Amino acid sequence: MQRTSLPFVLLTVLGACQSAPRLAGDITDTKLVTWTRLARGVHVATLGDLRNETRYSDLAAAPPRLDSLNARVDTGLADALARVRYSIDADGRIAVRIPTETGERIHGYGLQFDKTMHSRRILELKVDHFNKGGGKTHAPVPFFVSSRGYGVLFDTARYLKVHNEIGNRKDSTRNPEEVDRNPPPDEKQAGPWLARPPADAIEASVRARGLALVGFSGTDMLDVVARYNLFSGGGAMPPLWGLGFWHRTPAKYDAAQTERELAEFDRYDIPIDVIGLEPGWQTKSYPCTFEWQPKRFPSPGTFVGRLLDQGVRTNLWVNPYVSKHAPIHDALYPLSGSHMVWLGIVPDYTLPEARAILLEQHQRAHLDIGVSGYKVDEVDGYDHWLWPDHATFPSGTSAETMRQSYGMHMQNMLMSGLFQKNDRRTYSLVRATNGACSAYPFVIYSDSYGHDQYVTGLSSASFAGVLWCPEIRSAGSEREWINRMHTVCLSPLAQLNAWASGTKPWSYPNATDAVRRMIQLRMQLLPYLYTAFARYHLDGIPPIRSLLLDPDTHVMREDNSMFLFGPDILVAPFLDEQTERVVRLPSGDDWYDFHTGRLAGNGATMTIKAEHTGDMPPMFVRDGALIPMLSRKINRTRDAREMPIEVRHYGRREGSCELYEDDTETFAYTRGVYRMWEIECRDGALYPSLRKADGPSYYGAMTLREMTAR
Amino acid sequence: MQRTSLPFVLLTVLGACQSAPRLAGDITDTKLVTWTRLARGVHVATLGDLRNETRYSDLAAAPPRLDSLNARVDTGLADALARVRYSIDADGRIAVRIPTETGERIHGYGLQFDKTMHSRRILELKVDHFNKGGGKTHAPVPFFVSSRGYGVLFDTARYLKVHNEIGNRKDSTRNPEEVDRNPPPDEKQAGPWLARPPADAIEASVRARGLALVGFSGTDMLDVVARYNLFSGGGAMPPLWGLGFWHRTPAKYDAAQTERELAEFDRYDIPIDVIGLEPGWQTKSYPCTFEWQPKRFPSPGTFVGRLLDQGVRTNLWVNPYVSKHAPIHDALYPLSGSHMVWLGIVPDYTLPEARAILLEQHQRAHLDIGVSGYKVDEVDGYDHWLWPDHATFPSGTSAETMRQSYGMHMQNMLMSGLFQKNDRRTYSLVRATNGACSAYPFVIYSDSYGHDQYVTGLSSASFAGVLWCPEIRSAGSEREWINRMHTVCLSPLAQLNAWASGTKPWSYPNATDAVRRMIQLRMQLLPYLYTAFARYHLDGIPPIRSLLLDPDTHVMREDNSMFLFGPDILVAPFLDEQTERVVRLPSGDDWYDFHTGRLAGNGATMTIKAEHTGDMPPMFVRDGALIPMLSRKINRTRDAREMPIEVRHYGRREGSCELYEDDTETFAYTRGVYRMWEIECRDGALYPSLRKADGPSYYGAMTLREMTAR
Repeated sequence: MQRTSLPFVLLTVLGACQSAPRLAGDITDTKLVTWTRLARGVHVATLGDLRNETRYSDLAAAPPRLDSLNARVDTGLADALARVRYSIDADGRIAVRIPTETGERIHGYGLQFDKTMHSRRILELKVDHFNKGGGKTHAPVPFFVSSRGYGVLFDTARYLKVHNEIGNRKDSTRNPEEVDRNPPPDEKQAGPWLARPPADAIEASVRARGLALVGFSGTDMLDVVARYNLFSGGGAMPPLWGLGFWHRTPAKYDAAQTERELAEFDRYDIPIDVIGLEPGWQTKSYPCTFEWQPKRFPSPGTFVGRLLDQGVRTNLWVNPYVSKHAPIHDALYPLSGSHMVWLGIVPDYTLPEARAILLEQHQRAHLDIGVSGYKVDEVDGYDHWLWPDHATFPSGTSAETMRQSYGMHMQNMLMSGLFQKNDRRTYSLVRATNGACSAYPFVIYSDSYGHDQYVTGLSSASFAGVLWCPEIRSAGSEREWINRMHTVCLSPLAQLNAWASGTKPWSYPNATDAVRRMIQLRMQLLPYLYTAFARYHLDGIPPIRSLLLDPDTHVMREDNSMFLFGPDILVAPFLDEQTERVVRLPSGDDWYDFHTGRLAGNGATMTIKAEHTGDMPPMFVRDGALIPMLSRKINRTRDAREMPIEVRHYGRREGSCELYEDDTETFAYTRGVYRMWEIECRDGALYPSLRKADGPSYYGAMTLREMTAR
Repeated sequence: MQRTSLPFVLLTVLGACQSAPRLAGDITDTKLVTWTRLARGVHVATLGDLRNETRYSDLAAAPPRLDSLNARVDTGLADALARVRYSIDADGRIAVRIPTETGERIHGYGLQFDKTMHSRRILELKVDHFNKGGGKTHAPVPFFVSSRGYGVLFDTARYLKVHNEIGNRKDSTRNPEEVDRNPPPDEKQAGPWLARPPADAIEASVRARGLALVGFSGTDMLDVVARYNLFSGGGAMPPLWGLGFWHRTPAKYDAAQTERELAEFDRYDIPIDVIGLEPGWQTKSYPCTFEWQPKRFPSPGTFVGRLLDQGVRTNLWVNPYVSKHAPIHDALYPLSGSHMVWLGIVPDYTLPEARAILLEQHQRAHLDIGVSGYKVDEVDGYDHWLWPDHATFPSGTSAETMRQSYGMHMQNMLMSGLFQKNDRRTYSLVRATNGACSAYPFVIYSDSYGHDQYVTGLSSASFAGVLWCPEIRSAGSEREWINRMHTVCLSPLAQLNAWASGTKPWSYPNATDAVRRMIQLRMQLLPYLYTAFARYHLDGIPPIRSLLLDPDTHVMREDNSMFLFGPDILVAPFLDEQTERVVRLPSGDDWYDFHTGRLAGNGATMTIKAEHTGDMPPMFVRDGALIPMLSRKINRTRDAREMPIEVRHYGRREGSCELYEDDTETFAYTRGVYRMWEIECRDGALYPSLRKADGPSYYGAMTLREMTAR
């Protein structure tokens, strides 16, 4: 859905001028930013001339959820935001300065694989291959959140250079004292010489005529992230089947091979909900035709239908670069940019006529026969794969803006032009995204990572409204296969991507039982996970997130070897080939072992061994938490329908949880057609109450299972 | 000397329009560049509005040597240049497209440490720390030379992004055929699928209102490079002492320690001409005061004078960032940029009043007491050390332009405001330079490299008018120490930089004899090397250069394990800890062993062992070449005065060489006050003739030494 542009420019002109007294650290040769209130804790500002700029928020999947925002605490305008200054120089560069305080921690800036904390660091936020580093990544969301409870979205599709407390202005009153690096022997210095003397601000700049800012003022970091997600249209809501297990077949598989592989899943009793076809399903690929290759898929409708009959969806790999052999090539040629990618033309999908051509083809060749979604590849980088910065596009959109937003244009087009139009939810994959993308049910995937990067990616994505799928491709050993599968099955999209390796869940025979148990656990956790997604949609709370985004645990320092899966499960996966690891539980609450229900500790440091978890990942549940799960194992999500719910209760406290139900497949939920249970557990009994009952029921009856002996 | 700006804009308007027929590979939505002839084989063009842009050529040390250029063959305008097209887009980006042909090789782009060949490669030419890669380096000279005999200087101080035959335009008529990456089993493809399909042009762009180009048309790559150097004012001419051996003492040494270390050189009979003082000579450093630290140097004039009495020059480390403890700080404060570097202010040396303040202080505190030059550090990067791109400067110069040109501004100021004013040549060091810098006697140095990077750096610098010093700091073994010293002593500036390690030439006792022999050889080669520099100055021929810049050897493929030292000596150094290596001699000429005079081969591949070279580097001399050398070993260059010259003759052919003489220290040579001998060797006798005799003689009598037995 192409979102109606908010009248930001007018709002700024009409809005009340914010001002703040000059404080230490403020500088003078810049102007104070004028903020305009959009909703509680959400303010917008425009600097310069935005007429030729693309705002990420204009490409969002849905307009800001003003209702949800205005139901939150009115936090006003954060002090830091009231002191934001900017300048526009003669060289066409707009710079913004956001004063920080000593000890303030800066998190976010999208999907990053080394850390989530970016204080004292320079980032170049540019869409690029994931391994470029320094801020270049396939989801370089220009949004940060501060430990002081505010955040800023730089809402313009440009390369953004951010100096996080690096680069001291000479007129700042809060610079450190100068220290002699080479003092004579008898001269004492105030402190050590620092190669990076800390600065007192975040300074960011773009080369553009205009820059839009959105400021978020919250009670804590999670509240700021939630408001950011609500501003972005609320979190994505996948269909239930999207949360099942995914398997991508090798690039050159045909229909028969694919169906045989699916049969193998059932033979091995391994759950599967989605089969992903890689490039070779098309007549030509790299660049693409988007048409079925008749030698491999002589009857695509029959093929997709046979999978659907078995409860399995088909997901199609594409990249956006159009082969001259594509029937739509000639029509798209004049609507494409000056440069090609892999000798395929690059359509300018800011043009409605270009969108119409692709959408008509996709509807006919894919949606009409039941295809469930796409994996939109290669919209991220490298420079030597994509168009150059001097490429031109017929709409006049700059190559830079196109690079930063191409992945979002693809999501926007497919979402509004296909899935919403067909009233059929998708859960899809895309290789690049950017600001204000929270409402897109498109998951970012990457090539292959170290296991620590898997977990850091899950954490960093949660600050940025990004869903990230570590996926699994292969492993160096059975142990690594098991451990990777653990993390994959506790991520937003549980996918085995065997396009090149041909690996299958049972490829490591001694690991197959453990892998099966893990995937089955993922399936049993569907009610819990789906409810977490509902909260993402309704309130902007990320379903899988960094521990730093859990105000209850008061964690201050990042530890990216752990993350939260839903509201109450802490995961501390075995990394690489570990069979044991040290876990430092947060202090404050008691935590209980997910698998056994036994007390694990409170602020405790312990060593967990795989032999004691039954080769399952270390998982801990908050004292008093209720975890709604399917009462039995299933191999397809459709089998969850009417299945009884087992509500597991952990620890000694009384507690509560929610359970969300809807039709699992259409957009009726956006019109309020869903149910939300609040379930309490008191004195060994469940007390479910329907807080909202505007949709059909989906699951069966609820039963309590006390996990912790009393 | 601030060069008078050439009236490029006017020339363009007045110049005759060049045009060329549309050929395969040309594209149409751009304009043809209009070139204006400046000299034979040198054409200039301006695109857009250059009023607010800084041209590198305006910062050159001297105006173009039109006399020398117009003495060369009139090559007209190369076909490739006649077909250069450009566009200026609405986003403020200027792009240039230079069509290339299949098999064309693109070299240059400044000091690069991985290779000199950049076809099928994207570079971001930005001044940055040497190890950033991808085109970022401390000498990212935006000049390339093509194997087809032309070259282009992008003569505007901006970050330049260059796509060398990467990025296919959709309207090009010379794109490769599209190939299916995933064909069905029975479908054959025209060829392999290529991840980087070759494009048919160099495309480069800047974000700026204007871009100046200088096109060079030559007979071969060396001719193009020579014309580039002549356009840039001719190659740098160091004083003779600059070509002796340099030693930098540890950062916190005082006068007594320094003098003791100098005495040790003499005790070990190791040549030395320059002592470099590192930061601690100042009252404060990092940022700097530029004033002598009285606790370490209580009487700097006496200290520098005592060194001079021993024939040793003093070179001072500085960085440009001014401490608040510097007496000139307050005067420079309003003339400095918005941001600091290591808490020191960054003077805007585009402002004459800022230059005057620094120069007055340097003249008084340094030049007046006999200081010979500087090592201007830290003008290169990283981003987290330098000012951000959004910093502002009082002159209105953009931070980007300042970043690209700060090292050149420093050279320009020191050269014109101190050394030329005092009629005293310098050989100095600087950590960053850029386009059109050939005439500056400032040598780039780097931190520490692999040995292969040493040699690649020497080769790549020679394409760009850059002098580079690999310097030596320490080594992992005696063998590595010897091998590194070999390469250092065959580079433009032979320096041991012991600022941190405190290493001395004799620190590896078993290597001392070999090290001494190598430094002594450097000293004996002074007449040959100094003459090579004279040719650099007069004709633009790089004194040390890639084999690819030797038209006589017809080498086509880069082999950066070898380089030319002067016109006739091929060096193939032992790398790392090698005690033997394979050498592939170029074919065409016979090559002779430098040390023994014996025939080595012609196009031969051989293994050379250190045990057979007497621990000297493998060096080869072209058949017939004459090498003028000092007849005896010396420990100071001043002892070369009136010393007899031994002219070594290698091989069987009759040959000739030149020998250059001047006063070795003043700028009189720029006014034609020098001697140039042409020396022929026929039938076992020397026939020297003075081709130019406008200066004093320097050396003593010449004698022939036949190196090759007949």
